[in-house]
Amino acid sequence: MKNNCYSVIIAGGKGTRFWPLSRAQRPKQLLKILSNRSLIDETAERVHTLTHSSRTLVVTVAEQVDAMRKELRALPRANFIAEPQGKNTAPCIGLAALEVLRRDPDGVMIILPADHWVANVKAFQQTLQAAVKLAVRQDRLITIGIRPDYPETGYGYIMKGKMTDGAAKPASFQVRRFTEKPNATLAKKLVRQGSLWNSGIFVWQAATLIDLLNRYQPEIGARLGTIDKAAKGKSLGNPNPKLRAVIAREYQKMPSISIDYAVLEKAGAEGKVLTVEADFGWSDVGSWAAVHRMMHKDAHGNAGNGRWLQLGAKNCLIHSPDRLVVLLGIENAVVVDTADALLVGALNRSQEVRELVDELQRQGLGHYTIK
Amino acid sequence: MKNNCYSVIIAGGKGTRFWPLSRAQRPKQLLKILSNRSLIDETAERVHTLTHSSRTLVVTVAEQVDAMRKELRALPRANFIAEPQGKNTAPCIGLAALEVLRRDPDGVMIILPADHWVANVKAFQQTLQAAVKLAVRQDRLITIGIRPDYPETGYGYIMKGKMTDGAAKPASFQVRRFTEKPNATLAKKLVRQGSLWNSGIFVWQAATLIDLLNRYQPEIGARLGTIDKAAKGKSLGNPNPKLRAVIAREYQKMPSISIDYAVLEKAGAEGKVLTVEADFGWSDVGSWAAVHRMMHKDAHGNAGNGRWLQLGAKNCLIHSPDRLVVLLGIENAVVVDTADALLVGALNRSQEVRELVDELQRQGLGHYTIK
Repeated sequence: MKNNCYSVIIAGGKGTRFWPLSRAQRPKQLLKILSNRSLIDETAERVHTLTHSSRTLVVTVAEQVDAMRKELRALPRANFIAEPQGKNTAPCIGLAALEVLRRDPDGVMIILPADHWVANVKAFQQTLQAAVKLAVRQDRLITIGIRPDYPETGYGYIMKGKMTDGAAKPASFQVRRFTEKPNATLAKKLVRQGSLWNSGIFVWQAATLIDLLNRYQPEIGARLGTIDKAAKGKSLGNPNPKLRAVIAREYQKMPSISIDYAVLEKAGAEGKVLTVEADFGWSDVGSWAAVHRMMHKDAHGNAGNGRWLQLGAKNCLIHSPDRLVVLLGIENAVVVDTADALLVGALNRSQEVRELVDELQRQGLGHYTIK
Repeated sequence: MKNNCYSVIIAGGKGTRFWPLSRAQRPKQLLKILSNRSLIDETAERVHTLTHSSRTLVVTVAEQVDAMRKELRALPRANFIAEPQGKNTAPCIGLAALEVLRRDPDGVMIILPADHWVANVKAFQQTLQAAVKLAVRQDRLITIGIRPDYPETGYGYIMKGKMTDGAAKPASFQVRRFTEKPNATLAKKLVRQGSLWNSGIFVWQAATLIDLLNRYQPEIGARLGTIDKAAKGKSLGNPNPKLRAVIAREYQKMPSISIDYAVLEKAGAEGKVLTVEADFGWSDVGSWAAVHRMMHKDAHGNAGNGRWLQLGAKNCLIHSPDRLVVLLGIENAVVVDTADALLVGALNRSQEVRELVDELQRQGLGHYTIK
């Protein structure tokens, strides 16, 4: 791929959905739940042939930078950009856009959440190559839309409009409308209508994004401008104390808003957003149930990491790297074993793990959520 | 109670039904599953006011003697009788009878499995006092029959005959028939007919038992005779090497048979067995499900030892002394956490834990069943 392409890995995941494995100091992107490599390591590996490690950036909150550097040793130190605090995705992507522009005024950004799963890496790379071409040739914002396997209620949906180029593969479309997480009835309807899952993977030219931020979100645009001026052409990945203070001050005043609300929905309404329809096997790995869906299962539907044994158990997920787990006649359960805490849950209620973490806090057991 | 009364605690339990908590080196009677004291310690405590520690004997297999002495420090060393090998209950009780007779020719034995549970200790003691009087006055074998709470298929049943003394409390009856573990239909019928659970708690004069062993089981009788002769009036609880060798030789040749088959069924047919009907809250603590039944439960039917938290969980049993267990939306499960292994099972299949232990052996994981 061309030298002006940059992967921007957004590592904003927190340690709640995969408790007790995930903790505040061990967020989801660092977990090894689907293989013996962390999700962020696999994400970086997946884009390596597209943008090489020199053009792969990681944006994360300041207190996570050291852990991310340790996890992705192949990446240069200056490629890690620290957010002073979490402000959702719009400020974060804006900051990365400044860094890409500084490196290359014609820079193209591939935005990738750090903690997703992709089955077919080759198809994934081909899709992104097509998306980059489209982003440059038509100067549009590109979202990667995933052909749905089932009516998931935990994802956002993209309603497709006109096809942009009948001959091209993979096919691309105008985006007609974004729909936030639907209820079950609407999800079914959307799938029937041919809507796509919104993967949160985006491709666009950095300059185009900054233009649109200035237009739709003048406050964010202006504060990014202040940061850019203070940087005086120096890298945002390794700011001196003065620059770091400017970033902290401006960031603190920015609104916390997602790139979807801040830019995509508005640009979509003006016909500036396209979607590339993809089918490379994708998940946002949003819960233990999602992990179970992705893993290779035995004849009884059980899957796991670590040492386990079952007698009459069905559709269970086990994560126990250190101790023997024995399942007896239990069904649709998730068992997660860690050094100090153990979760035994109904797999179909695993989206409630977040509430468990809140409950632990309320009961004075917050130390079980830290490390 | 009279000075000629002896409690004989039979500690024959193995480490299979309560895996992973129980192990070959940590059999059921040593477990602290219902309180912070082991089952055998509670058994000894329960009979303390009846027979005092000087007249409380423990019979167990040789390799368990040290562990039992350590657990029951109040008992004199010579009160622990070692079986060279497990031979079911008839040889074991015969051996204890010799020791009781040696100490007192008019000795009365109260036979107690080491690993049962009793709710109302006072009622238990009153029942045994009545049983001792009956055993001496009528020179009969007394079994304690428990009024059933529900048609349990895991217990033996006693069909009552004529009441022996209308005025006495608790009531006692001739035993008409013993029924081994029935199927569900028969169990219901037995409960309807007023049959009692056979508790495995027996009371009789030691001399009477030896007489009946000689008559019904002449081989056991003769070999016990050889042991008794070799002892020359010395304690069986602290045998010298020569006596120990004689016990080992004779024991090895004895048939492995329960006291029920060996003596009680035959004596019952001759009208020599009475049952005292009791209602002191009893269980043989035969499975994790039985433990759940006995424990104090929260509003959702959950019970446990250790630190645990639940969100939408129902009817679960947790045993986790060291780590935090969190249950999410799971029902009718048992969770047992130990240092090296974890069991997550359906509570109503907990009687299959024994098969799990076999399965571990087959899979080369036998070390998880030892200590």
